[in-house]
Amino acid sequence: MKDSRFRLDFKVRDYECDMEGIVNNATYMNYLEHARHEFLHTLGIDFAEMTAKGIIMVVIRAELEYKSSLRSGDTFTVCVDVERESKLRFTFVQDIFNSDGKLVLKGRITGTAVNSKGRPELPPELEQAFGI
Amino acid sequence: MKDSRFRLDFKVRDYECDMEGIVNNATYMNYLEHARHEFLHTLGIDFAEMTAKGIIMVVIRAELEYKSSLRSGDTFTVCVDVERESKLRFTFVQDIFNSDGKLVLKGRITGTAVNSKGRPELPPELEQAFGI
Amino acid sequence: MKDSRFRLDFKVRDYECDMEGIVNNATYMNYLEHARHEFLHTLGIDFAEMTAKGIIMVVIRAELEYKSSLRSGDTFTVCVDVERESKLRFTFVQDIFNSDGKLVLKGRITGTAVNSKGRPELPPELEQAFGI
Amino acid sequence: MKDSRFRLDFKVRDYECDMEGIVNNATYMNYLEHARHEFLHTLGIDFAEMTAKGIIMVVIRAELEYKSSLRSGDTFTVCVDVERESKLRFTFVQDIFNSDGKLVLKGRITGTAVNSKGRPELPPELEQAFGI
Repeated sequence: MKDSRFRLDFKVRDYECDMEGIVNNATYMNYLEHARHEFLHTLGIDFAEMTAKGIIMVVIRAELEYKSSLRSGDTFTVCVDVERESKLRFTFVQDIFNSDGKLVLKGRITGTAVNSKGRPELPPELEQAFGI
Repeated sequence: MKDSRFRLDFKVRDYECDMEGIVNNATYMNYLEHARHEFLHTLGIDFAEMTAKGIIMVVIRAELEYKSSLRSGDTFTVCVDVERESKLRFTFVQDIFNSDGKLVLKGRITGTAVNSKGRPELPPELEQAFGI
Repeated sequence: MKDSRFRLDFKVRDYECDMEGIVNNATYMNYLEHARHEFLHTLGIDFAEMTAKGIIMVVIRAELEYKSSLRSGDTFTVCVDVERESKLRFTFVQDIFNSDGKLVLKGRITGTAVNSKGRPELPPELEQAFGI
Repeated sequence: MKDSRFRLDFKVRDYECDMEGIVNNATYMNYLEHARHEFLHTLGIDFAEMTAKGIIMVVIRAELEYKSSLRSGDTFTVCVDVERESKLRFTFVQDIFNSDGKLVLKGRITGTAVNSKGRPELPPELEQAFGI
């Protein structure tokens, strides 16, 4: 498992598995979101507060490569790194590894932020976090 | 809205919206899956039966471009087309439009099928469906 | 199937099934909520608008009796009736039947409404709807 | 918080919150299920294995009393106790407390087990677990 800016450990919950007995594809988006929000929290960015202030962080693109499956009882780690794409866009690079260190999923989630007028605008907290 | 091989109409359910008041990003994967499975059904492919037979259709890649948001009460349509990528891979091209015909999401979901020995193998029903 | 104040037809979506191959228990709460909100809409009550106005409708009690299972491909109907429990409480009586008319689930969802000061208060629209 | 046979700590994930900004009612069923399955695991009962063996543990009744809400960022604990209802029925008594020890939800989930012939039958492992 590579060195990442943030990591979060999870355990598969049985309701996340579908009738194939594996974690449903959509559920990985949940895992990735939770890890991103926890990562943002370490930067002093609270998603609920931002939403209350009228700043909406939006995902504009998601790319997921499914490499192996997670099953009931599996534990896994979601890694989070972030890349600046442009003035207004940033990409979370999020890989998931199982407890044996096997790659489960490679994710790239690109987002921007929209202010209360609906215009793209990264808030200062976010600028600072991605600034360097 | 373009001409597609299959279309399915949906209405947003309030539990699918998150605290931003819009449909959560992960939920689109659910919409796309349901539309794919309904499309496969029209081709005589039943996902539950296939799973019971030991043939697992797996998603290996998903690309989603989020273009506009869906909100409580919105109705929308998921379009489904399919492209052969290679001998063992096929891509569902799935766009979502709201009831005004505005593009909500562009999706490309690439899959393959794995037999009970865990080896890639498209079942005959699937070959036939994508065959031409 | 009994005579009800409101009915909504659904079809099971495969992602709603868990590894037992049946619709996961929690998913029925989703079905019931969606049917309730659609019912409230027919009464002129929009859940998203109410929330925006600071009136929060809250569920305080849920009783579910699971009678038979729903599976991939099943269609079913959620019936909705409503009973006044007290000045500030009302119960949605919600039964689910499959397409053969077999009882799937008996639900009783009791709610109240809370104003922006956090105090129980049914809004006039709701009073009127349940008033008689 | 009372003394319980089993406890599991959770943190709210933002995707579990709905447009009211609180954890959606249905999500509590997910929390309760995950805590139950983890509890059963400590008794040597693996839900996935049981399902694979043809023994289906089914919920026949759920009673939930919602006492206070969980929000983004909240941590909480699900307690699990179990009561024998009858020869073939058992009830999981599951209360949820937030990190201040405030009661969030009181749950009673009654289940039974069905063998591969569809007849109620508690497997020996389960008998033993609840036996005394």
